Amino acid sequence: MIGGRGLRGRKPGDRRSRIDRPKARYFRYVAPGVLAAKMTVDEGSTPFERRTSALRHKVFGRPIASEDELAERLPKWKALPIFSSDVMSSVAYASEASMFTLAAAGTAAFGYLMPISFLIVGLLAIVTISYRQTIRAYPNGGGSYIVAKANLGALAGLVAAASLLTDYVLTVAVSVSAGVYNLASALVFLRGYEVEIIVLAILFVTAVNLRGLRESGTAFAAPTYIFLGSMLLMLAMGIIRTAMGDPPHAAPVPLAPIPFEGMSLLLLMRAFADGCSAMTGTEAVANGVPAFKRPEWQNAQKTMAIMATLLAVMFLGMSYLAGVTGAVPATDDSILSQVAAAVFYGRTPLYYLLIFATMGILILAAQTSFADFPRLASLLARDGYFPRQFALRGERLAFNVGIVALAAVSILLVVLFQGNVNSLIPLYAIGVFTAFTLSQSGMVRHWKTEGGPGWRRNAIINGVGATATGIVAIVFAIAKFGLGAWIVIIIVPVLVGIMLFIHREYMREARGLEVRPEIVFGEQRRRVRIVVAAPAMTRAVVQAVRVAETMSDEVDVVHISFDLKDAEEFRRRVDRQLPGVHTVVVESPYRSLVKPFIRYLEVSQEEEPDRITIVLLPEHLPRHWWDRILYNSHVHRIRSELVGRPDIVVLDAPYRRDH
Amino acid sequence: MIGGRGLRGRKPGDRRSRIDRPKARYFRYVAPGVLAAKMTVDEGSTPFERRTSALRHKVFGRPIASEDELAERLPKWKALPIFSSDVMSSVAYASEASMFTLAAAGTAAFGYLMPISFLIVGLLAIVTISYRQTIRAYPNGGGSYIVAKANLGALAGLVAAASLLTDYVLTVAVSVSAGVYNLASALVFLRGYEVEIIVLAILFVTAVNLRGLRESGTAFAAPTYIFLGSMLLMLAMGIIRTAMGDPPHAAPVPLAPIPFEGMSLLLLMRAFADGCSAMTGTEAVANGVPAFKRPEWQNAQKTMAIMATLLAVMFLGMSYLAGVTGAVPATDDSILSQVAAAVFYGRTPLYYLLIFATMGILILAAQTSFADFPRLASLLARDGYFPRQFALRGERLAFNVGIVALAAVSILLVVLFQGNVNSLIPLYAIGVFTAFTLSQSGMVRHWKTEGGPGWRRNAIINGVGATATGIVAIVFAIAKFGLGAWIVIIIVPVLVGIMLFIHREYMREARGLEVRPEIVFGEQRRRVRIVVAAPAMTRAVVQAVRVAETMSDEVDVVHISFDLKDAEEFRRRVDRQLPGVHTVVVESPYRSLVKPFIRYLEVSQEEEPDRITIVLLPEHLPRHWWDRILYNSHVHRIRSELVGRPDIVVLDAPYRRDH
Repeated sequence: MIGGRGLRGRKPGDRRSRIDRPKARYFRYVAPGVLAAKMTVDEGSTPFERRTSALRHKVFGRPIASEDELAERLPKWKALPIFSSDVMSSVAYASEASMFTLAAAGTAAFGYLMPISFLIVGLLAIVTISYRQTIRAYPNGGGSYIVAKANLGALAGLVAAASLLTDYVLTVAVSVSAGVYNLASALVFLRGYEVEIIVLAILFVTAVNLRGLRESGTAFAAPTYIFLGSMLLMLAMGIIRTAMGDPPHAAPVPLAPIPFEGMSLLLLMRAFADGCSAMTGTEAVANGVPAFKRPEWQNAQKTMAIMATLLAVMFLGMSYLAGVTGAVPATDDSILSQVAAAVFYGRTPLYYLLIFATMGILILAAQTSFADFPRLASLLARDGYFPRQFALRGERLAFNVGIVALAAVSILLVVLFQGNVNSLIPLYAIGVFTAFTLSQSGMVRHWKTEGGPGWRRNAIINGVGATATGIVAIVFAIAKFGLGAWIVIIIVPVLVGIMLFIHREYMREARGLEVRPEIVFGEQRRRVRIVVAAPAMTRAVVQAVRVAETMSDEVDVVHISFDLKDAEEFRRRVDRQLPGVHTVVVESPYRSLVKPFIRYLEVSQEEEPDRITIVLLPEHLPRHWWDRILYNSHVHRIRSELVGRPDIVVLDAPYRRDH
Repeated sequence: MIGGRGLRGRKPGDRRSRIDRPKARYFRYVAPGVLAAKMTVDEGSTPFERRTSALRHKVFGRPIASEDELAERLPKWKALPIFSSDVMSSVAYASEASMFTLAAAGTAAFGYLMPISFLIVGLLAIVTISYRQTIRAYPNGGGSYIVAKANLGALAGLVAAASLLTDYVLTVAVSVSAGVYNLASALVFLRGYEVEIIVLAILFVTAVNLRGLRESGTAFAAPTYIFLGSMLLMLAMGIIRTAMGDPPHAAPVPLAPIPFEGMSLLLLMRAFADGCSAMTGTEAVANGVPAFKRPEWQNAQKTMAIMATLLAVMFLGMSYLAGVTGAVPATDDSILSQVAAAVFYGRTPLYYLLIFATMGILILAAQTSFADFPRLASLLARDGYFPRQFALRGERLAFNVGIVALAAVSILLVVLFQGNVNSLIPLYAIGVFTAFTLSQSGMVRHWKTEGGPGWRRNAIINGVGATATGIVAIVFAIAKFGLGAWIVIIIVPVLVGIMLFIHREYMREARGLEVRPEIVFGEQRRRVRIVVAAPAMTRAVVQAVRVAETMSDEVDVVHISFDLKDAEEFRRRVDRQLPGVHTVVVESPYRSLVKPFIRYLEVSQEEEPDRITIVLLPEHLPRHWWDRILYNSHVHRIRSELVGRPDIVVLDAPYRRDH
């Protein structure tokens, strides 16, 4: 034990050396005046506390030391399920969403599906190539917030951040709801409990994430890879069957009743926008670079390339097979289900495997949000735009506050909307494209400022990305404005406003408390007298008086009284039980308590301005909410009146009864 | 100025004498170590504060010194409107309520009205005679709570108190609503704003009461006496006209549609119970004895006798004239209005005077509740059954907290029920009769214990009172149970439970903080070392260190660190800027903040158990609700963990940034 070395290494005569050799149980000696806490410090003191912390370690895992962070990094095979579940899950609904929109112009309009799909995959390629550059340029994490802030200023960064935070919350609410409703339509005994199951599913994902990102990767790898495998198998079988001259045909189902409105540019734009929702989640990899194993940026680039390729293959494949099989949007059978049944020769075990894997991946789509929201929030907290707690890592290195906040807000949404989160879908994805645009524009600026070989080429690549995503963002806004996208125009500025407000508060606080580094504070030489506020002769007052006696020989107990008889009794008790302490009784004929006390302090301080008055206020430490009603009604006002006055220092002496 | 005497009266050589001669502006010298605050202490320090307090004095009146309380006592002519407005207002509806109930057995059943009225007046006589005895026996206030508690135990007292408190709240809500609805049916332009006007009326009565009871008497005397005068005039005219052979006849109006159910005992009981609602408010005089001018009990007895006589005369007169004139319960014309129109020869100015005075008295009926609720609550607070704040008298000697609480709860009721408080009427009055019964039973017990001449006679009188009111309470419960009286069975026990809970809390607190009177505390002789918790080098930490330096030579600044490089920078700043202060850095590899600090204190205290550790915690003083989110997330936990440990004392050093 190194702690032992600290004990033996004590230099005789060094009064302070004791602090370097506390018992080896809790601390390790590092250097003079430096101790390192061991894991044992977090043990509870009581058996109950110890049991709770043992339980916590069982549920969430044992604490991980900061220095072991590297071992917690993600290998690519774990990073893929974490960062791509959102993207992959969109294969389950993106083609269908486009077809639903196109159906308004008649089934002939389905011919536009393949061109739209190619357009989306082209956009995906542009975004992926752009982000590869960002990842290389910002190896410590190149999310839109960081890139936009660094190159376009704080406001651009905050707009990107607010857009993404909104999007992540919506993703959790919408995708988990979608998954659970799909599940409930397959397993009828779950019907009627959808909201409860959605909440449980979100809580489950939350709990896994509180175990740390690596654990999430482990837990969610299997369902993701099963989905991936069965999806690719279906696409391969479908394409091979078509190539072999045995194209699968979907069982005819009635087309969902969709009001006819004829082909129009707006309709095409809406169909395109629907398909683009597949691309939310691409951001997460760029922001999450520091979570990858070394070399971080290379692994992140590779993961992103794999993700984009898989998405492109699956998305095009789905759109293609939808055309081949003649699947149409129906009220109670999804395109995916129709295609799978056609390819797998009916509702065979393979069909069910794919369908259940799809439901799983829809629920897991929330994982991408859980990976990125807390990280983004921690960056905002580090920069003073979010409450500081968001920057703290928990026992398992996870950003617990962010994880819990994301869970809470999304559960709130689900409960408020009673699971009918479809109305939120139009809001979805517009944030991501705003963030994309800001981030890529930032990159263009970055290359211009940076210079270096090939900067022009790099700037053009990101410029193309910025233009493409910018256009998509505008298309989105136009296509979806009437459907609710205007809400984003309220939410994002409100969020930005809150973040700016928090930042201003923290900045003011920091300026207000700043100690100029050149000042040297000499020792306090002024005389000190202590005033103890004493409403009655209680243990709390005795404790305060005894502390006061260590501070000064001049201790006054001040008692505000409505009744001089009681006051005399009080004085007699103090004289008898606390010898050497002087009592001042202030009679308050107008029954105020706070002002006479404050005025007495002012007046007596003015009389001897060369001394300092330290006021000790015994304060009941609240343990329950009702304690705030039953006690302390005056302490807070006294404290608030006295704080910050020259020559008067106020100290609270908290007490709590034992039982 | 006596303050000057204090200044000059200083004995040379008395180190402490300074405290007896603060500037004469704020304090007056009373005796050595005793000051009396002048009214000036409550002046604000800033111009804004001074302006607000000047405004407050203008609206609510200048503060009244406790010693001037006698001058604030009520003469009988002011006490009558305060304590009897509730009783008198019932004349406006009690007969009508009985007739409404009787109408269900056909108009022939109106013949029962006079017998019922005599029964009620008989009951009133019994209650009044009983209460005369109570007032004499408890000259310091003989409300049901005090009498029941003193003679039947605390629980009986609390049941009486809870019943009355409930009743007072209902009285305010119901009677003000009734007055305003009557007003709005006369002045049509007020319709649609009833709820707003009810709230304004309650706020007005509240404001007058905050000026003090005496001011309420002054303000509400005129409307009460106008009502009294015009009511008696009408009764006299009606009776004289009948005696002279010119009986007034009401204009025929259609009978309100009331489902026929035939005569039954239950119906008679209900009609009787409806009439009994006239008697709520009789309690207030007995409880309010200390508010009367000396000799208190005699004045209170006289006031009560006048009140009962007036009520008997008016109630019997109204019932009699209702019969003579042939007025019947109608949908949109009250019995009072029909009788008044008949007596006063149509809708003449005298008619309108009476009608508007009636509306006024209905609104003022709330005054009786405002006189008694706060007083009862203050008694409960004094005995530890209510939060202590209820026992404090405000600047004008009124129990402000109780007044505001009554206003708040009754406004809440009005708003929740949107003014449709008729559904609350069945709850009304049952509480009063429960309290009557408990109080009179208590009196019987009182006489038995007390003995003395004529105790048997006294006990019999109160015994008759207890029996009569007890029977009425049971009649009430049976007659009104289905109509909502069962709610009282929930509210009263819940209130009693809350009061018992508060009492237990205060008792525990008192026991936990009790200082045995025989202990003499010697001066603190143990060595003291101070630990300042320092998250960063801020003014708050510097202030805490400088206070610490006055307390001990041993000052340790303890810094919990996640990053040793930052910690080294912190240590260098402390060494340079706060010479003589020792820094301890505790590295926390598991990123916990609270536990390593606590453990460090434990371990270092254990090493030198002969000394005391005082922990100074710099704490951000919250000014806004959001401050609780942005700051102090750890201070509260540290404080809560440390409080009450032997040999470790925790002190909060609050700070607040200046801007």
